[in-house]
Amino acid sequence: MKTQEKTPPRTTSDDRAAMKALVYRGPGKPSWEERPRPRLRASTDAIVRVTTTTICGSDLHILKGDVPEVVPGRILGHEGVGIVVEKGEGVGGFKVGEKVLISCITSCALCPPCRKGMYSHCEKGGWILGCVIDGTQAEYVRIPYADTSLYKIPAGFDEAALTMLSDILPTGYEAGVLNGGVAPGSTVAIVGAGPVGLAALLTAQFYSPDKIIMIDPDQNRVQAARSLGATHGLSTGGDSVAPAVRELTDGRGVDVAIEAVGASATFLLCQDIVAPGGTIANIGVHGKSVELHLEKLWSRNIRITTRLVDTATTPQLLKAVESKRLKPELLVTHRFGFDEMLKAYETFGDAAREKALKVVVSTRPGPGAA
Amino acid sequence: MKTQEKTPPRTTSDDRAAMKALVYRGPGKPSWEERPRPRLRASTDAIVRVTTTTICGSDLHILKGDVPEVVPGRILGHEGVGIVVEKGEGVGGFKVGEKVLISCITSCALCPPCRKGMYSHCEKGGWILGCVIDGTQAEYVRIPYADTSLYKIPAGFDEAALTMLSDILPTGYEAGVLNGGVAPGSTVAIVGAGPVGLAALLTAQFYSPDKIIMIDPDQNRVQAARSLGATHGLSTGGDSVAPAVRELTDGRGVDVAIEAVGASATFLLCQDIVAPGGTIANIGVHGKSVELHLEKLWSRNIRITTRLVDTATTPQLLKAVESKRLKPELLVTHRFGFDEMLKAYETFGDAAREKALKVVVSTRPGPGAA
Amino acid sequence: MKTQEKTPPRTTSDDRAAMKALVYRGPGKPSWEERPRPRLRASTDAIVRVTTTTICGSDLHILKGDVPEVVPGRILGHEGVGIVVEKGEGVGGFKVGEKVLISCITSCALCPPCRKGMYSHCEKGGWILGCVIDGTQAEYVRIPYADTSLYKIPAGFDEAALTMLSDILPTGYEAGVLNGGVAPGSTVAIVGAGPVGLAALLTAQFYSPDKIIMIDPDQNRVQAARSLGATHGLSTGGDSVAPAVRELTDGRGVDVAIEAVGASATFLLCQDIVAPGGTIANIGVHGKSVELHLEKLWSRNIRITTRLVDTATTPQLLKAVESKRLKPELLVTHRFGFDEMLKAYETFGDAAREKALKVVVSTRPGPGAA
Amino acid sequence: MKTQEKTPPRTTSDDRAAMKALVYRGPGKPSWEERPRPRLRASTDAIVRVTTTTICGSDLHILKGDVPEVVPGRILGHEGVGIVVEKGEGVGGFKVGEKVLISCITSCALCPPCRKGMYSHCEKGGWILGCVIDGTQAEYVRIPYADTSLYKIPAGFDEAALTMLSDILPTGYEAGVLNGGVAPGSTVAIVGAGPVGLAALLTAQFYSPDKIIMIDPDQNRVQAARSLGATHGLSTGGDSVAPAVRELTDGRGVDVAIEAVGASATFLLCQDIVAPGGTIANIGVHGKSVELHLEKLWSRNIRITTRLVDTATTPQLLKAVESKRLKPELLVTHRFGFDEMLKAYETFGDAAREKALKVVVSTRPGPGAA
Repeated sequence: MKTQEKTPPRTTSDDRAAMKALVYRGPGKPSWEERPRPRLRASTDAIVRVTTTTICGSDLHILKGDVPEVVPGRILGHEGVGIVVEKGEGVGGFKVGEKVLISCITSCALCPPCRKGMYSHCEKGGWILGCVIDGTQAEYVRIPYADTSLYKIPAGFDEAALTMLSDILPTGYEAGVLNGGVAPGSTVAIVGAGPVGLAALLTAQFYSPDKIIMIDPDQNRVQAARSLGATHGLSTGGDSVAPAVRELTDGRGVDVAIEAVGASATFLLCQDIVAPGGTIANIGVHGKSVELHLEKLWSRNIRITTRLVDTATTPQLLKAVESKRLKPELLVTHRFGFDEMLKAYETFGDAAREKALKVVVSTRPGPGAA
Repeated sequence: MKTQEKTPPRTTSDDRAAMKALVYRGPGKPSWEERPRPRLRASTDAIVRVTTTTICGSDLHILKGDVPEVVPGRILGHEGVGIVVEKGEGVGGFKVGEKVLISCITSCALCPPCRKGMYSHCEKGGWILGCVIDGTQAEYVRIPYADTSLYKIPAGFDEAALTMLSDILPTGYEAGVLNGGVAPGSTVAIVGAGPVGLAALLTAQFYSPDKIIMIDPDQNRVQAARSLGATHGLSTGGDSVAPAVRELTDGRGVDVAIEAVGASATFLLCQDIVAPGGTIANIGVHGKSVELHLEKLWSRNIRITTRLVDTATTPQLLKAVESKRLKPELLVTHRFGFDEMLKAYETFGDAAREKALKVVVSTRPGPGAA
Repeated sequence: MKTQEKTPPRTTSDDRAAMKALVYRGPGKPSWEERPRPRLRASTDAIVRVTTTTICGSDLHILKGDVPEVVPGRILGHEGVGIVVEKGEGVGGFKVGEKVLISCITSCALCPPCRKGMYSHCEKGGWILGCVIDGTQAEYVRIPYADTSLYKIPAGFDEAALTMLSDILPTGYEAGVLNGGVAPGSTVAIVGAGPVGLAALLTAQFYSPDKIIMIDPDQNRVQAARSLGATHGLSTGGDSVAPAVRELTDGRGVDVAIEAVGASATFLLCQDIVAPGGTIANIGVHGKSVELHLEKLWSRNIRITTRLVDTATTPQLLKAVESKRLKPELLVTHRFGFDEMLKAYETFGDAAREKALKVVVSTRPGPGAA
Repeated sequence: MKTQEKTPPRTTSDDRAAMKALVYRGPGKPSWEERPRPRLRASTDAIVRVTTTTICGSDLHILKGDVPEVVPGRILGHEGVGIVVEKGEGVGGFKVGEKVLISCITSCALCPPCRKGMYSHCEKGGWILGCVIDGTQAEYVRIPYADTSLYKIPAGFDEAALTMLSDILPTGYEAGVLNGGVAPGSTVAIVGAGPVGLAALLTAQFYSPDKIIMIDPDQNRVQAARSLGATHGLSTGGDSVAPAVRELTDGRGVDVAIEAVGASATFLLCQDIVAPGGTIANIGVHGKSVELHLEKLWSRNIRITTRLVDTATTPQLLKAVESKRLKPELLVTHRFGFDEMLKAYETFGDAAREKALKVVVSTRPGPGAA
């Protein structure tokens, strides 16, 4: 459906037109290599010099070879903050030199899904960065439809924190909190305390739910979740979780069960703990089908939702950062320089042992920079 | 959860206190036999003399032994129209002698689910008639919480038609149309052209969707659906259905896929034909789990809903009958007398061959009576 | 706020670059005169040769001098159908030679209000055609942001009918029906049976309300409304209307009262007839303030809405025309040629006597043409 | 509409059947006098011994003679906490001896408005306490439809604080916050920092709006509002307020303007400061009509709402008190004993000078009691 961007030749004679980038060279082969800088291809494009980027769970999936759309030679990455260095004449909303947030979703603004606010299914965009076109884990990146795929950022804020708004915060908020219908007084369970689950946790608090129960086998992450606002944490595994949730909810189960893992067992758990009239909001990226117990659920008046993030809430999240109601920096555990990109991948790839949530990679990694 | 009503002794010495009823005597054993008339047990009860009742697909399930809550000795039936013959002092909304519609859902009006309009999960009621307490396939029935479980009916309307409002019309409307979010301009597919699927078809038209595609292997039923307002019908089986639906929807799939069968294959079909941003509204009663292709659906922004009918829309549906916007009589294909109850079961049990949709059973089956 | 387009000199030496247009020359002075054809000014503009246009009530207001934004020299008109004859390089959605519907609302698609679907408040567009830039009552018109301000039209449909979709049908639908929350079973009153009131009447029927009571002092219009689907009509004036509405609604009043006049008396009537929990949806263009009886309404749980049409529903309305669920041609009473533009104004200006609803003006007015 | 309860003779011979009550003896004449204790009149009634009550702004209105439904002899008061001392056999939800919150709204649960959740317009209840039947400013009160007009209260919480949930907190929340559609990121202005405006302020924070601008001429109250969570306060009067609000909102105005005064000037101010697409949520009790500037607002896509509190959110608010997300005790400034009832009225009647928000009256006013 989406057109694959052709990969340019590996080297370039003009040094000023070269840059370093993290290139996918096939399963298990990330490569930090020199590549020609991107150029404008359409009047609605902008070229952004990336100053901070980060690594997403889906980048690890790509490196395992799980995402067939991504072909060898592709520059990875769909998150980042940078500076506009060049723009097509059709770009009216930004100036060269302006600092911007890059959305993981490219939106043309004109097609029917975009007109409905479902940018994730933009007929010309959607999730294309670091997927079917070159991405943000590079010194420069080309952003199509820049006017509606970049966002102005408030001055004086930590770039690393703002990078959390490229993907994981709108993902947790839109696919978890909004689709789940979290409301004042709700009881919420979030299954999975990884970065996206924690993003759901932070943004669920916009709605003052009565209880937020964080569920994860990793006790460290549950602990982190408690400090980020979870009212309860469950790190016990297996069959004891559902009874524990019911005990916390007067036997009813939760109004909203947010799946933030992408696995069969966790989706089954959500089915066990959702109350009649409740919602299972799926955020997880699933690699295979799951069992749905309709023989129990058909009569329980529940709702199951899925969503690829639209980033329609990015302006609201930026305002929340500005007013300090949202503190994305709490999700950043490790900071690296651009020349440490492969080390950053290693750290994030071994997140549990490294106690890593989000690792950011920045052009100026010196003290106080990020 | 719900308390089982004890079955009274099979016979009674007082003839005036006896009645005939369809009693479940174990799997495969319906029995048309004499039983004592029901009596008031609580001040909020009413006794209704049933003048018309009907048979539901779930009655057939019970007779197969598929519904463990139903114990031998239970009078079946949860649909009907009748006349109030006795009432407790706490019943203020109806008079003795008044003709009423019996809702398949008993609602106490006071518990938290009832206060939220989710009568199906009433803490003291819900689906209890013909399930854990004696039902409507009898000359008399006791209705608990009569004030909020009975509805006044408009004078001069066909009782058989009104009986369709006890269960199948609110079921098709609430679980299919409302949960599905059918709206002006929507494309809708209804999988299964049985009584409930056709009830969804009739009530979907309240919202003027752009297309309603009826899908059923039985060509007769598809034909019936076309005459009831379906814009398209598909009776081809198997793998050719999904491509045909896509062709009818410019390759997008449907905005709303309504599952009105309760089987694995039909639920899978709904997953195949739902458009990004769309809804699968399950009405079907499922006996086992189904496969959910989250590996495809996680990113498609869809919604899956389930619902046991609340009958919260019964007043609206009654008004629609009165104004002739809704013609439930179109669903009634066979009419029997009370003494033909077992024959009615046989006919409904062999619906495809008999070309039966809904069969009604009435006390006065003479010409022009129903 | 919106920038006024400068008016070019009245004549032009190049005949091929000239056209005829209806120009506002000050209060009471419409002029059918020669003007230079419009040219592209931005890459997102298109030039459309107008084949059918129509006159709106607001054009009459302008001619009375009631709309100060409109300066002498302005070409009027914000409705029409035509053919794209030229387009900027930034216009990707249409081809030269394609037939299009012109929306009365210009939408840039990129600004925050556009991203929320509130195109009426587009920071660069909104209602500008025939107001602050030259409009459609001319042989040619320049359409800014063509990709999101023009719509493809279905082949084989009456142009005059489609012209009703430029303004009045989305206005009646969005400001009246959608803002009013018309729903299956609702009782609706529409105050004012002019073109926009009738547009609300036609589109209210998408939702199968229980009753639609049309109120207008002109008995002819009420009669027309009855034939277009109103279930009741009231042409009695003054104090007898509110009691009559209450009688039709069991003393409750209506769920939705749609004001389609723009006057004090009709807005007061809406306050009198709205039921507790109901909505007053204002469509009318008001020239002065009205009295709001909050001393009665503060406790009645009502909602009052206003809206400048967004034309966000235009694609849906086009589909409804295509499927013949909506028949806009029913609103067209008079058809004129372009050279009869002033006569068309006269007829529309004396609508009651002429029994005129909408008058259309077309380049090819011969028999069978429109 | 509502039936007036007859007032019993002033004295009684049986001492054990007597009680003290605040009786309305005509305009300007509150009287603290002896009255017979109330008795059960219907099986759904309960008798509650009032342990804490409070005075509402509407009580002051009644005493001015502004509320014609209230006849001399009526015991005032519609707020309170107490203990069930007697109940009809139809009351199943409460036990004698149980501590309860009295809702200011009586709801039968069975009528159509109650079934829709609009208890304020209950056909048999609504606001009747201290209005058309005797109220809570007495040692005992009869509560009709006790099952759905009383609420269980969490143990160990300050009774005075809980009394805020009888009326003002659900009023501010339902009529202001929910009707206003306050959402994460909203800009909100609350006009009027009296008890109900502050109740709106406390509950608006459930939704994490971006800004809450509190507007009141009384600098003390604005100061109090700041300490309760308002992000901005404006105590400047007259024409400077609207410009100040626009300056705080980038010239747009607010998304939600909450009117919490009930006067013409404040309602006009709301019209001045609401942004296009925004909402004016009226809470104020208005004594006369106001001017509505439809000549400006007709095209601004706004919504105006009114609401008599339904107290449908009381269970949610009780949970919020329990989890300490809501601290109603912050609204209580003065505490009196029952025998100081008239003094409490005096204090509340001179609220500005006394710096009074809510005054509570309790049976056990000793230290630590309330």
